Amino acid sequence: MNGARSLLRTAADAGVELCFANPGTTEMPLVAALDEVPEVRAVLGLFEGVCTGAADGYGRMTGRPALTLLHLGPGFANGIANLHNARRAHTPVVNLIGDHASWHRAYDAPLTSDIVSLASPVSDWVRTATSAKRLANDVAEAIAAALEPPGQVATLIVPADFQWGEGAGLVAVRPSVSAGVVSTKTVDRIADRLRASERAVLLLGGGALSERGQRAAARVADAVGGRLFAETFPARWERGGDLPAVARLPYFPEQGAEALGDAEVVVLAGAREPVAFFGYEGHPSRLAPEDAVATLCEPKEDPVGALESLALALDAPPTRAGVGDFEAPALPSGELTPGSAGQALAACLPENAIVVDEAATSGLAFYAFSERAPRHTLLTLTGGAIGQGLPCATGAAIACPDRKVVAFQADGSAQYTVQSLWTQARESLDVTTLLCSNRSYRILQIELGRAGIAEPGPQARSLTQLDRPALDWCALARGYGVPAQRIETADALAAALPRALAEPGPQLLELLL
Amino acid sequence: MNGARSLLRTAADAGVELCFANPGTTEMPLVAALDEVPEVRAVLGLFEGVCTGAADGYGRMTGRPALTLLHLGPGFANGIANLHNARRAHTPVVNLIGDHASWHRAYDAPLTSDIVSLASPVSDWVRTATSAKRLANDVAEAIAAALEPPGQVATLIVPADFQWGEGAGLVAVRPSVSAGVVSTKTVDRIADRLRASERAVLLLGGGALSERGQRAAARVADAVGGRLFAETFPARWERGGDLPAVARLPYFPEQGAEALGDAEVVVLAGAREPVAFFGYEGHPSRLAPEDAVATLCEPKEDPVGALESLALALDAPPTRAGVGDFEAPALPSGELTPGSAGQALAACLPENAIVVDEAATSGLAFYAFSERAPRHTLLTLTGGAIGQGLPCATGAAIACPDRKVVAFQADGSAQYTVQSLWTQARESLDVTTLLCSNRSYRILQIELGRAGIAEPGPQARSLTQLDRPALDWCALARGYGVPAQRIETADALAAALPRALAEPGPQLLELLL
Repeated sequence: MNGARSLLRTAADAGVELCFANPGTTEMPLVAALDEVPEVRAVLGLFEGVCTGAADGYGRMTGRPALTLLHLGPGFANGIANLHNARRAHTPVVNLIGDHASWHRAYDAPLTSDIVSLASPVSDWVRTATSAKRLANDVAEAIAAALEPPGQVATLIVPADFQWGEGAGLVAVRPSVSAGVVSTKTVDRIADRLRASERAVLLLGGGALSERGQRAAARVADAVGGRLFAETFPARWERGGDLPAVARLPYFPEQGAEALGDAEVVVLAGAREPVAFFGYEGHPSRLAPEDAVATLCEPKEDPVGALESLALALDAPPTRAGVGDFEAPALPSGELTPGSAGQALAACLPENAIVVDEAATSGLAFYAFSERAPRHTLLTLTGGAIGQGLPCATGAAIACPDRKVVAFQADGSAQYTVQSLWTQARESLDVTTLLCSNRSYRILQIELGRAGIAEPGPQARSLTQLDRPALDWCALARGYGVPAQRIETADALAAALPRALAEPGPQLLELLL
Repeated sequence: MNGARSLLRTAADAGVELCFANPGTTEMPLVAALDEVPEVRAVLGLFEGVCTGAADGYGRMTGRPALTLLHLGPGFANGIANLHNARRAHTPVVNLIGDHASWHRAYDAPLTSDIVSLASPVSDWVRTATSAKRLANDVAEAIAAALEPPGQVATLIVPADFQWGEGAGLVAVRPSVSAGVVSTKTVDRIADRLRASERAVLLLGGGALSERGQRAAARVADAVGGRLFAETFPARWERGGDLPAVARLPYFPEQGAEALGDAEVVVLAGAREPVAFFGYEGHPSRLAPEDAVATLCEPKEDPVGALESLALALDAPPTRAGVGDFEAPALPSGELTPGSAGQALAACLPENAIVVDEAATSGLAFYAFSERAPRHTLLTLTGGAIGQGLPCATGAAIACPDRKVVAFQADGSAQYTVQSLWTQARESLDVTTLLCSNRSYRILQIELGRAGIAEPGPQARSLTQLDRPALDWCALARGYGVPAQRIETADALAAALPRALAEPGPQLLELLL
């Protein structure tokens, strides 16, 4: 068994089922080994950012790592932006990068580069393999690292000669470490502080945005009269149905600071201390009063258990009163706007859908409309590296073939990984893309204003406008094999969206906003 | 004058005229300053790899650096692959990367990352700015670094607060360092060695592939009965017309080694020692006999002067006999193949065209057909990081608005930076793309065979096939605003290509190979 096969066999035995691949010459033995280990399904992306974003979406939905298979430094570099998002989401991912044969590196052939330097900023674990015989062990350690709570990005660089060289036997992946349990002392300290506070906030992130986490958090909030917020960009947020209503912490720092400013205590449950997304002149980085922040659990600790312990410590009733039946918002009519688009999506959302939100400014209205929509899972842009939505939807659809995936997507952001549509067509994935075409980097137009540039000159204006020429998203989708239609009014969307969601397979609705 | 304006004003005063931009919030002051320094033209790309590849093409054609303006670590990372190519091409490029405000970095906001670690592998010079007042000085040093022979990639990371903070006065860029002159001793040593050799090869690269360099090299070759080769992936190669015939060193190592194997001396003029593109089991990395290699000039030395000195030292006649009139190959007929496509392009090539070759396996036949085509400039994939062709053509067309640019382009590679077509449409660039659609990663099918996998299984096969679904390149081009037509026979190409080349503006011919 060569090194490549021992690596893949070890990964398959550990339960790895997916490999999002865009390989090149230095990965050929691993490519060939995929046919000897058919339990690992290979899915081709036409661009590395599609592969890494899909691995992120897959990992968020399954809790298990997919492999990516990428080509040397420059190929890997194309996947960095979405690995940045995956790392911020704490998604388990294992990257395999082929490198030159170990004896060939010294010759500095054209594709040689410092892969470790490129990989380190987006990897919690990096290793360059040193022999064929250790490849099985290397991948076992990579998988274990990826599964370390709360989930990590692991990167294994595999010189080609170790892939084709004779490997050793298989290696069992050591059992996953469990998330740590928050100490009673911490729980009691936070409970005391909550009891003593008039205005409490619980800021939920990570695993606290699961069903159990939110139900426990709502019991705590009810017991102390506090408010619930979700971090601004959750990796995975269970929402709708009879789940407690949790508001999203606003994006802009003035609004974020306003939401938290009068809190006597801000309990962090799975969330990090909230800070401004960007630093602005004259605005503090911190959003919450510094002395109000109280950390319930550290990143490697279990926020759900901590919230349940906290509810118990506060003698909160074991179940919360139901919130009543779901009331769908009405279907919108009239002009097609971000508001009516968000309303239509909330009104039509099928039970158990997965919504991937990279709609940027066009997506904001959806949150309020969908608070009482049917149960759904929301995946968002954790790291702010745009081009995440379409690949993440692709990976989520592969992870959950029995669930409808909706990619709620901004046009500017979609361009960075537009090739995702092809993988959706190739794999017949059940993804409906709502492409919000406002033909601008709308957020940057807002940011220019925030930076005091009320009347941008022609060059600044031109760098935020995508209307010359307008992208024809229906043509692009068809070019990748995805059926598409253009929608110009809210009424047309109200008519088309239920039909689109009822049909299986990928399709794209181009919303002219 | 704020820091951003002092930076751009300094760059403009140093002759910088272009900024290929895909900015975000942390670059807003620089974006605004572009309207205060209109001598620097801003060109928008929808993806960072378009910007960096365009800066590479622009720099290769002008010898001067363009700016790129990119957003933080993940945005920059999307531009790494083409910066890898630019660095290997020795193209002068100055990257400007906005970063968080210096006081905001400590809060590890979502988009925070280690930009220096990402930038270092593709930059010859990296600096993080430390104050607004030094920004003019920083960019002056970056430009000087970019212009250091033989050309370098310089990266300046600019925290947002230094962009909006009060800058100091402008700074003059120190005059460019000239390339070093090769010593008489070295020239005489090589001349002696050439006189004593029966079988000599001159391997030309970098500046030696200019008109003067090749004419001098041909005089040397004539004087000693030697052969001329160009390195396999030249940054810029002047060809055709009455220039000497120079063969391209073959890509595959067996053929490269065969071309050089019997040489008694291999003189490196602007080229590095030739090595295999990849390491293969049982094949040495070096292509030339080790004791045959003789270095005429180091990277920072002038290969043209060195070759002219060498010709003089060998008493070569001052001018070489003409090679006769150009004879265009006949227009092809019958089946559309890589051969007939290369023949058609050579037959129709307009005088003074710029050909950007990223046609991969489909492009090989063009080299022989075009040896005696009208004078043209050829730009190739220096670093092997695919996705270079369409952006490089974009930048070359901006650099040389009076020359026809032909992008001879493989389909798989084109997908990595397909968004280039939009910038071509937006800027009305005179680029004709010959999109070679063989619906496969053909090179990987060959590489699987080379790796001993004669009959790939379904997964390996699937990772090299792009036919399910077939990309509709005409739809994609139209989606980006570029007119397109599908070509299915050599006769249709022979009819369509002259018309396409005669029309100004971007267009795409999808060649179904």
